[in-house]
Amino acid sequence: MGRIRLALAQTNPVLGDLEGNCTQVLEAARRAAAQGAELLITGEMALSGYPIEDLASRPSFLTAAVDAVNVLAKRLQDEGLGELVVIVGHPDGPHEPRLLGTSNAPTAIAKNSASVLHHGHVKATYSKHHLPNYSVFDEYRIFIPGDELLVVRVNDVDVAVVICEDLWRDGGPVARVLEADAGVLAVLNGSPFERDKDEVRLPLVTRRAVETDTIVAYVNLVGGQDDLVFDGDSVVVDGSGTILARAPQFQEHLLVVDVDAASATDTPLPPEVHRIELTASARAKPELSRDVAELPDDREQLWNALVLGLRDYVRKNGFRSVVLGLSGGIDSAVCAALAVDAIGADSVYGVSMPSRYSSEHSRSDADDFAERTGVHFETQPIAGLVAPFEEQLGLTGVAAENLQARVRAVILMGLSNMQGHLVLTTGNKTELAVGYSTMYGDSVGGFAPIKDVPKLLVWELAAWRNEFAASRGEVPPIPENSITKPPSAELKPGQVDEDSLPPYEILDPLIDAYVTRKLGAADVVALGFDPAIVDEVTTLVDRSEWKRRQGAIGPKISGMAFGRDRRLPVTYRPSRAE
Amino acid sequence: MGRIRLALAQTNPVLGDLEGNCTQVLEAARRAAAQGAELLITGEMALSGYPIEDLASRPSFLTAAVDAVNVLAKRLQDEGLGELVVIVGHPDGPHEPRLLGTSNAPTAIAKNSASVLHHGHVKATYSKHHLPNYSVFDEYRIFIPGDELLVVRVNDVDVAVVICEDLWRDGGPVARVLEADAGVLAVLNGSPFERDKDEVRLPLVTRRAVETDTIVAYVNLVGGQDDLVFDGDSVVVDGSGTILARAPQFQEHLLVVDVDAASATDTPLPPEVHRIELTASARAKPELSRDVAELPDDREQLWNALVLGLRDYVRKNGFRSVVLGLSGGIDSAVCAALAVDAIGADSVYGVSMPSRYSSEHSRSDADDFAERTGVHFETQPIAGLVAPFEEQLGLTGVAAENLQARVRAVILMGLSNMQGHLVLTTGNKTELAVGYSTMYGDSVGGFAPIKDVPKLLVWELAAWRNEFAASRGEVPPIPENSITKPPSAELKPGQVDEDSLPPYEILDPLIDAYVTRKLGAADVVALGFDPAIVDEVTTLVDRSEWKRRQGAIGPKISGMAFGRDRRLPVTYRPSRAE
Repeated sequence: MGRIRLALAQTNPVLGDLEGNCTQVLEAARRAAAQGAELLITGEMALSGYPIEDLASRPSFLTAAVDAVNVLAKRLQDEGLGELVVIVGHPDGPHEPRLLGTSNAPTAIAKNSASVLHHGHVKATYSKHHLPNYSVFDEYRIFIPGDELLVVRVNDVDVAVVICEDLWRDGGPVARVLEADAGVLAVLNGSPFERDKDEVRLPLVTRRAVETDTIVAYVNLVGGQDDLVFDGDSVVVDGSGTILARAPQFQEHLLVVDVDAASATDTPLPPEVHRIELTASARAKPELSRDVAELPDDREQLWNALVLGLRDYVRKNGFRSVVLGLSGGIDSAVCAALAVDAIGADSVYGVSMPSRYSSEHSRSDADDFAERTGVHFETQPIAGLVAPFEEQLGLTGVAAENLQARVRAVILMGLSNMQGHLVLTTGNKTELAVGYSTMYGDSVGGFAPIKDVPKLLVWELAAWRNEFAASRGEVPPIPENSITKPPSAELKPGQVDEDSLPPYEILDPLIDAYVTRKLGAADVVALGFDPAIVDEVTTLVDRSEWKRRQGAIGPKISGMAFGRDRRLPVTYRPSRAE
Repeated sequence: MGRIRLALAQTNPVLGDLEGNCTQVLEAARRAAAQGAELLITGEMALSGYPIEDLASRPSFLTAAVDAVNVLAKRLQDEGLGELVVIVGHPDGPHEPRLLGTSNAPTAIAKNSASVLHHGHVKATYSKHHLPNYSVFDEYRIFIPGDELLVVRVNDVDVAVVICEDLWRDGGPVARVLEADAGVLAVLNGSPFERDKDEVRLPLVTRRAVETDTIVAYVNLVGGQDDLVFDGDSVVVDGSGTILARAPQFQEHLLVVDVDAASATDTPLPPEVHRIELTASARAKPELSRDVAELPDDREQLWNALVLGLRDYVRKNGFRSVVLGLSGGIDSAVCAALAVDAIGADSVYGVSMPSRYSSEHSRSDADDFAERTGVHFETQPIAGLVAPFEEQLGLTGVAAENLQARVRAVILMGLSNMQGHLVLTTGNKTELAVGYSTMYGDSVGGFAPIKDVPKLLVWELAAWRNEFAASRGEVPPIPENSITKPPSAELKPGQVDEDSLPPYEILDPLIDAYVTRKLGAADVVALGFDPAIVDEVTTLVDRSEWKRRQGAIGPKISGMAFGRDRRLPVTYRPSRAE
């Protein structure tokens, strides 16, 4: 056996910021070297951030990224870290435009790559073979697939390198590269969080480790990037399926661990495998303590994902504060509580905007939230702003209801323009599904913290957050009344959501069947839902696509979020036969 | 030689409306049979509309589509049209989920297919081999590629069938299927309009016809579907490169033409080619007149594309009228003129919303437009609506400017809610590029008629439309003053666009270099632009991505429209090195 000390850099890159991301890797390398590691591995595209989308087709971006890889190699050497072998993920190119599979457009000029840095130079580069082109991913659109395999011999341990999707594919490069008897499989990942994904991902990593009797070092990115939240959760598993080390979710971390891997042999290499041999001598090797994070329960994971998604959107886009309407209802309270956890109460500005239809509790519950959390809070009544529109335009009915929401939007955007806050829009996934919102009213904002959270889960998370606070002896942030009262848009007297919509206990599973499970209306009825309700809800979902297209982005936490995950036409007249 | 009478059905399907689209094909078949055709060919996916996007992953949708193909076959037979051979495009499935190329997600269950109908039955089905996954297309995401080839022997002429991208690919199915000595190549297309695309498409069709000495029958869809406008322009070209028939752009058409094709031989078929033999007897064959449409000039094509895109968005989404703000400026005048051409002046509602900063000409030019065109016109001054916000919130500067735009948005949305109009948003491509608009202000609306038209082209189209009217002895719709005056948002006293932006003569080509040609900032400077202006403009473009994400859809007329064509992150911190 050969013993090697691995360091997994679970970094949080800012997309495009090559200098800043380079510094993150350099800092990880300093700490890895200080802890005696011989090999440092980053996540997928750690140098550029991920996913780069169509930046992959901009030659100057690719040139700058490749330059940054060389700069990183040189900086490592200059700082005396040249002995450490570093495997860093980055975009590679521009390459000769290449035809992609079955299409004829020569647009792809980039590869999704990982380079091996040692002694100040790039020693080898591997490019991802398997390009995900489903769900939120469009990699087949933008990347040329790699066709070579790489093994890095570090002292007497052979380390095979693959990237993300390569690990998932049965019979893919993992199988072939391990014919070369590698002792360690280094996997660079950009794997976004989804509820219950750890129930798929860890078993996969474990299965690969066991079936190949290899140590798998799985490095994931961490951090929010638009609608994606990378959860980290990097892990090292040995050939018996034992977890040797595991990084915490949702935070940057350097995971350092000693592994006893099979020693390199002189097994002849399959022809497509490229092998390089490097000698790495570590500095003194301090004793390592066991570093195996425990995953928290489901609701805590979800909450943390939402917090990180929001924090990183704010921070990476240069905002310092957020503003949102506090209606006293559950959605705005949960969004505000997420914001408090993400960026601190002193950066959160809540605005109560009561109308003549607002209940007393809508004001008092919002006020209660502000007292519990310490956010900035002001009241802007809308009656005097609404009335001139009603009088001048003679608005009635739904038009008058929407008017109130739009006047509130004008207030929030005005405060944002004056004070530089990011506006948060507080709609949940259920509302988004059925279009239960006012366009350019409560839908306004740059970020939608709970857009992928169905209403029943909003309540569940609120209850969890309060329990969590109580368990730590803290004040529960969300007023109990916001959780227990019947939800209402309060746009006309005595209005509650159930006047317009089926109960959420029916609505949420119905939407799940239609949207997530992609069942047709007849198949949804077959599950036991009332046909009239199915017809009503599926029609609402179809007709609201234009609203969703104009909606703010927000963190994806499910296997099927609205947005890039679900691409449907706006113009769509469903067949009666469907 | 074998003579066969072909009919090309250039139909305008409504996406999802299997019954309505089936009726369109049936009606084309009636007319084709009456004109003595033996073979009718539709565009790609004529039965479902195109592109179906992720509807391809809904099993019930696919089942309904396949049922519709069988229903169509039976209805043809029942109407006594069973002798006519009909090749109709449709989605096919659900098939066993299949791994797609280099990704591991078993999501594709559909094929993009064309079925041959005869004597009441589906006789054969071809599925597209080459799946475009670039620009606006995501076919690699949703379809299983076909791997068989099809030749339909109609009497003594062999007709090979392929679909759209199959034609473009060198060495693709076209080459292989023609080894079977087919006399006619039937190509079903869903090829959206782009400026100058006919300069690529017709030469391609001609080249294929000449290089294979075959008659190519190229059938394209027509009509607007969300951001795409299919232009029709179906064409039949013989092996000498001569155009035998050509359908007009932007309208439904049945193109009927006799062709003298090579007679079928007993050449052995390559193994992957499937051949079926059908006997079609036409009714009486009336004499055909020559049907070769002339393409109008570039600006007329562009105008017609915008008109059709707008008309079909309105019509297919069930609207009867549109409302828009008429500022007296060029953008709103062009949008309103497009609307008048699309749905008639009586369905167009213009609203002048002057503020205290509005010039006298902003009212008089809007009024002039209304008089010239006969649109409905009303004035809603905003001073009394703006003042309460300014007073209550103390808004100043940009916040006060944006407030005016947002108050106008509330008016338009209120009128829309009361009267059922679709709201048009009048921003042009240049504004969209640099974010020169107020979010939830002038950006509101369900459709953006000129979102892919740069400012200089807006002026050019306005001038063309007026000249066109004059040449026909009609009143030019656009007030001369709207064309000639300096553009201004009129949100503060004396404001003109050039206070905030470089002149459009610089801005438009600069944006073209950065956005369309994907040059990095340094490469744009190398073209001769001022470095400070390049820095300013590219920064504005990058920072406006969040606005574009929330923008309305509108017709794509260029090779690089904002939207699905250009997928870039919102959160993006460009490297200094890029």
